[in-house]
Amino acid sequence: MQIITSRDNPNVKRIAKLTKRDQAKKENLIYLEGTRLCEEALASGQAAVEVIVTEDKTGWAEEHTPGVEPLVLSSDVFRKISQTVNPQGVALVIREPELTAEIPHGKDGKDIYVVLENTQDPGNLGTIIRTADAFGLTAVIVSPTTCDPFNDKVIRATMGSVWHIPVIRKTMDECFRFFDNAGIDTLAMHLNGSELDSGILRLPCAFFIGNEGDGLTDETAARCSKLIRIPMRGKAESLNAAVAASVIGYELSKLL
Amino acid sequence: MQIITSRDNPNVKRIAKLTKRDQAKKENLIYLEGTRLCEEALASGQAAVEVIVTEDKTGWAEEHTPGVEPLVLSSDVFRKISQTVNPQGVALVIREPELTAEIPHGKDGKDIYVVLENTQDPGNLGTIIRTADAFGLTAVIVSPTTCDPFNDKVIRATMGSVWHIPVIRKTMDECFRFFDNAGIDTLAMHLNGSELDSGILRLPCAFFIGNEGDGLTDETAARCSKLIRIPMRGKAESLNAAVAASVIGYELSKLL
Repeated sequence: MQIITSRDNPNVKRIAKLTKRDQAKKENLIYLEGTRLCEEALASGQAAVEVIVTEDKTGWAEEHTPGVEPLVLSSDVFRKISQTVNPQGVALVIREPELTAEIPHGKDGKDIYVVLENTQDPGNLGTIIRTADAFGLTAVIVSPTTCDPFNDKVIRATMGSVWHIPVIRKTMDECFRFFDNAGIDTLAMHLNGSELDSGILRLPCAFFIGNEGDGLTDETAARCSKLIRIPMRGKAESLNAAVAASVIGYELSKLL
Repeated sequence: MQIITSRDNPNVKRIAKLTKRDQAKKENLIYLEGTRLCEEALASGQAAVEVIVTEDKTGWAEEHTPGVEPLVLSSDVFRKISQTVNPQGVALVIREPELTAEIPHGKDGKDIYVVLENTQDPGNLGTIIRTADAFGLTAVIVSPTTCDPFNDKVIRATMGSVWHIPVIRKTMDECFRFFDNAGIDTLAMHLNGSELDSGILRLPCAFFIGNEGDGLTDETAARCSKLIRIPMRGKAESLNAAVAASVIGYELSKLL
C-alpha cells in the first residue's frame, strides 16, 4: 500500500480539483466526503469512480468499495484537500445521476410530481427531495434556474433521498408540454390561489413551487390548471417553500 | 447630529459587545441588523432600546423609531461592528421576549402547542416557529436543550413570526404537568407510532418533536398519550423535523 504524503502528487491535485463543485460539475462528477454521505450513496447503488481514504481507513474502503483501488493519503494531505472541519478520512468521487433524463411515468396513473421553479436555498431543495421520497412521489423536477441538486448542502439535507428518487432538470416549457399532453393536473402553489381542499385533488398531478422570495412567475402560474393556497390562520404571510411542498405532497400522497 | 467615526467610542464598544449573541443574551437583549429584520420586529410592536444607523440612514430611524435618539456611525465604523457581509446601515437592540412566561391558554379549548425537545438546527427551529404562526398554533415550547430561539439564524428563518407567537422555554416535566392537569392530548411524533389519521386527532392538543438525529427521548415518548407516525411510502427513513411539525400542525389546524 502506497501512502501519498505530498499535496503535489498528481492524483491528489486531480482530486483536489474535484472537491470544488464547479470543477466536478464540468466533468459530471460529484465529490462526497464523510462516512454518512459516502455510505448512503453506495447503499443506493452509486458506483465509486474514485475512493480516497486515509491510512487508517483502508478497512472502510475494503468493506464498502471492494474492487476499487483506493487512493490512500496521509492524514495531513487528506486534511489539506478536505472540505470539512473535522475530516473523517473517507471520500468518494461518483458520477452525477442523469439530470437530463425524460420525466418518468411510473405508477399506473398515480404519479405525483413536484416542480421547483427557481428554488435557491440548498436546504430547502434538499428537504423537498427528502420529503418527495418519503411521500412516494414519482420525481422532483427542477428548473434550470434552481440551485444545483448535487451541491454538497443539498445532498446532506436529502439524507440519502437524492439517490432514491429521480431529480430531473426541465424548463417550464418542457414540463407543461409533458403534463398537458399526458392530461396531468398542474397545481400552482400560489398565495392568490383557492384554499387547499382535499376534495379537489386527483392523481396524476404535478404541483409547482416557486422561488423563496418571489413565488412562482406569473407566466408559470398562468399555465397551471389550478392555483392552490395552503390555508393560514396566523400572522405569517407565507410558508417556507419546503413546508408548502410538504403539506401539498402529504395531501396528495393520501391518494396513492 | 453627531457622527461617530471611531471604533473606540464607548457607545460603539458597548454595541459591538451586544452584536455577539452570548453577550446580548446575558443582558436579555437581542441585536438585530438589516432593514427586513428590524422592520419586522418594530411592526410587531417590539420597542427599540437602541437604534444604530449610518449617516445616510437617519431618515430610516426618523421614520421607524421616532422618539429614540439614534447612534449615528460612519459607514466605516458600522462595517466594523456589523455581523453581515453587506451592511445595510440599520441595526436595533431590543429586549428579549419573556421566555419563561407561563404556557398560555387561549382559544376556547382549541389550543394547539408544539413542543420541541432538543431541536438543534436554527433553520429548523425558525421554520417551525414560522409554520406554527401560519397555522394558528397557541405557542411554541422549547426544551432548555433546544437551540436559542433568538439566535440570528432562527430569527431570520421565522420571517417575523418569532414576534407573532409566544415562544416559551419549559422542561418536559413542566410541560407534562401543565398538559396532563389541563387534560390536553399529548402526541409524540415517533417512528414507532401508529399512522397519523385525522380521525384520532382532537383539540386541545400538544405535539412533541424530538432532536433531528435521535428523535424524542424514550422518557418523553413514554409520557405522551399517543405515539404518531406520519405515513411514508418511499425509501426515506424519516422526515426533516420541520416537515414533520408542519404536517401534523397542518392536520391539527383543520380542527380550528
